[in-house]
Amino acid sequence: MSENGALPRLGKVLTADTMNANVKKVDYAVRGPIVQRAVQIEKELKEGVKKPFEEVIKANIGDAHAMGQRPITFFRQVMALCTYPLLLDDNKFPEDVKNRARRILQSCGGNSIGAYTTSQGIDCVRHDVANYIQRRDGGIPSDPDNIYLTTGASDGIVTILKLLNTGEGRTRTGVMISIPQYPLYSASIAELGAVQVNYYLNEEKCWSLDISELQRSLQAAREHCNPSVLCIINPGNPTGQVQSRQCIEDVIQFAAKENLFLMADEVSNAFFTKGCEFHSFKKVLFEMGPEYSSKVELASFHSTSKCYMGECGFRGGYMEVINMDPEVKAQLTKLVSVRLCPPAPGQALMDLVVNSPQPGEPSHQTFMKERTAILSALAEKAKLTEQILNTVPGISCNPVQGAMYSFPRITLPERSINEAKAKGQAPDMFYCMKLLEETGICLVPGSGFGQREGTYHFRMTILPPTDKLKTLLNKLKEFHQKFTQQYS
Amino acid sequence: MSENGALPRLGKVLTADTMNANVKKVDYAVRGPIVQRAVQIEKELKEGVKKPFEEVIKANIGDAHAMGQRPITFFRQVMALCTYPLLLDDNKFPEDVKNRARRILQSCGGNSIGAYTTSQGIDCVRHDVANYIQRRDGGIPSDPDNIYLTTGASDGIVTILKLLNTGEGRTRTGVMISIPQYPLYSASIAELGAVQVNYYLNEEKCWSLDISELQRSLQAAREHCNPSVLCIINPGNPTGQVQSRQCIEDVIQFAAKENLFLMADEVSNAFFTKGCEFHSFKKVLFEMGPEYSSKVELASFHSTSKCYMGECGFRGGYMEVINMDPEVKAQLTKLVSVRLCPPAPGQALMDLVVNSPQPGEPSHQTFMKERTAILSALAEKAKLTEQILNTVPGISCNPVQGAMYSFPRITLPERSINEAKAKGQAPDMFYCMKLLEETGICLVPGSGFGQREGTYHFRMTILPPTDKLKTLLNKLKEFHQKFTQQYS
Repeated sequence: MSENGALPRLGKVLTADTMNANVKKVDYAVRGPIVQRAVQIEKELKEGVKKPFEEVIKANIGDAHAMGQRPITFFRQVMALCTYPLLLDDNKFPEDVKNRARRILQSCGGNSIGAYTTSQGIDCVRHDVANYIQRRDGGIPSDPDNIYLTTGASDGIVTILKLLNTGEGRTRTGVMISIPQYPLYSASIAELGAVQVNYYLNEEKCWSLDISELQRSLQAAREHCNPSVLCIINPGNPTGQVQSRQCIEDVIQFAAKENLFLMADEVSNAFFTKGCEFHSFKKVLFEMGPEYSSKVELASFHSTSKCYMGECGFRGGYMEVINMDPEVKAQLTKLVSVRLCPPAPGQALMDLVVNSPQPGEPSHQTFMKERTAILSALAEKAKLTEQILNTVPGISCNPVQGAMYSFPRITLPERSINEAKAKGQAPDMFYCMKLLEETGICLVPGSGFGQREGTYHFRMTILPPTDKLKTLLNKLKEFHQKFTQQYS
Repeated sequence: MSENGALPRLGKVLTADTMNANVKKVDYAVRGPIVQRAVQIEKELKEGVKKPFEEVIKANIGDAHAMGQRPITFFRQVMALCTYPLLLDDNKFPEDVKNRARRILQSCGGNSIGAYTTSQGIDCVRHDVANYIQRRDGGIPSDPDNIYLTTGASDGIVTILKLLNTGEGRTRTGVMISIPQYPLYSASIAELGAVQVNYYLNEEKCWSLDISELQRSLQAAREHCNPSVLCIINPGNPTGQVQSRQCIEDVIQFAAKENLFLMADEVSNAFFTKGCEFHSFKKVLFEMGPEYSSKVELASFHSTSKCYMGECGFRGGYMEVINMDPEVKAQLTKLVSVRLCPPAPGQALMDLVVNSPQPGEPSHQTFMKERTAILSALAEKAKLTEQILNTVPGISCNPVQGAMYSFPRITLPERSINEAKAKGQAPDMFYCMKLLEETGICLVPGSGFGQREGTYHFRMTILPPTDKLKTLLNKLKEFHQKFTQQYS
């Protein structure tokens, strides 16, 4: 206090001017202004405000359950038993459900999912993950010591970026990321103060990845930073493409030659187009022989949130690290221990995903039926999206080969572009905002993911139920035609 | 590749030399070398290796369920129903359990706990938290918009530190933290590259906080950094003291005068000593009148992990922010949205903690019985710990007034100190390591929390079941006497 006892008139400690400047640079379009407006509109509808539509259809985020997808029965039964173990005596639950629950509980401190787990994650879960990876990759060994359970995949990705983040000015870590990209990457890079190094996917060739473009991007970046890590999202988010085995091999070769740490974001592991199958970076790396498999540093990421599971709320995930320097690995283990452990229910759920019911087990049939139904519906909706959108003049949509997103290109009339710019808005934000206000459809503008200068897109999930998706696509078609007329 | 097709012989991208130097500076004693050794010893015991003890007793971490504490039935019943909603039709669950589960599910996207929640946390949970705080603080209003649900309290603490972290050299953010402190603080400060500013608690006065020491610490820090945030842990971790209302008022006055952002870590909310009760920083701040309550910036933290709940694995928590600049709050909301949301099961559990069964509800009686039993046992064990330890010459232990930790001071013989130093070990690490090897008791050396130069301590939780705790304390007594003789 000042001498007369009154408090000095000081401003706030923490203001927009004094706060961490890197945090201010963070952008996260998937939950940006358009989604905030959608939430407002929902409130207005509830309060009886008249709108030209009756509900907001959210196709902005890969949130399957919110879009009506039902959870897998087996997963939820085991989780209920882990949560309230007295249900182990209830004969309405099948034996395989009980066995899985018992096994998980036995690995928890005091047999409770309420105990902290080890920082790297529950032992038996990491073993199950390693076995799963080994099966997935045709027998290429996976070591449970290389598995770290995470709080969703995002947590793992940010942790690896943290380890790599170093230097100042021209020695600052550069992180190579595809454009378009999932904005977790740009946001984390901004927060850490690292340098985002863009390489462009080839929209004309179904969002494929050209090594020559990687080379161009790397060379340009070396002028001003130290690009040391290459991030790949496969299947693509927001672009929905699936990379060929050849492309993955080329990327690995490039990383080896240029001494880049590889981060493979493989969370959106679902496939719809014939001939498009999943090749894990790990498998391809090991098939390339010891010259590569003993050298290239790789971290790959997986989660419970995508594919047929859609269990986003549990925040389950894992990462596998390959060829990580043992001292760095010890540092990684130390770093994750500061947060104590990932959520135990998410870890348990991750276990069930990698250790699902096997033929002969009582839950197998229902599990397969539920899983197949979800994946078939996704495949159907992927096709539907591509087909309907491509009938609209001014919209062109690459095939949705995997994941759960489409990223169609839209042609915007010059006048709308100018009007947007006058308002200080990205032209595709202007478009999406108008779409939301007029139809209730919530999409994310392409500018939130990055796109080639002068091109415009939006990201749309294919998750709404088929009927609603048809409505959405037809409304969108109508809107686009109207919008084009209005601004032509 | 080089021209002849062979890969160039480059080293690893990510090594101990090239990695983020701040991460290397991170230390987290609660899961440090002593705990790693304890895990090894457990494995050795399982493999049949002969030891002078039969089991490792872990008193290193506040992990109640791992120490045999049973989860609260009501919590787990509601969580089971949220997880597997078909159980809502099962008449073995009481109506209040079903009502709570229904209410939570109705607030989840698609009525599934597997959907993402809003970034700030489920609406109805934030409302319940605000109501709880208002009741706790005798009617002082709490705004749900100021509540952020978090992934355990650690997540909230790190997030606020991130916002405050700025500047370079002499303008670098200084974070004032008590010594001894909970190492999440030192670890996060190191990771962010901020400056740790120590103020010492007064061990002679039961770990109380003297304003003159805050003043000394602040003045010294201003010579080399920009101290802008003051962290208080109440009840104390690792020290188990409870601050008086007067002390809290003095601290707030100090923060107001010196323009410091206040962080109040109030997670270990359990009380054992008569006359020691909880005064929240929020309540005291508002009772000091508008001159303070409209000015002082405060973030307070709570969690599902401590007190009678002990639900660490769920990683539930919340923070309340008071007087935060609206622009900064918008930045905070944006920042947390990058990680999408805290785990939904942890959010639901947090809801049950703040919205527990009320008189007249079917679960009330059992709930109260379970809760009281846990808190009484903790109080008994707090007393027991203090009493037995204070009978040992060379150990002195302040009363454990709250939380679940004791932090006794140990007198170490000169020869043991020299031997430790010759080994490059902190003397209390040397002591704790020997204790572990000879008795199986796992404690954390005081050096992991910070202590006055030349003093030695350990942190011990009071969580083992009473019988086991007695064994532990008596073994410890015997060990200390033997150790003292051996090195005298």
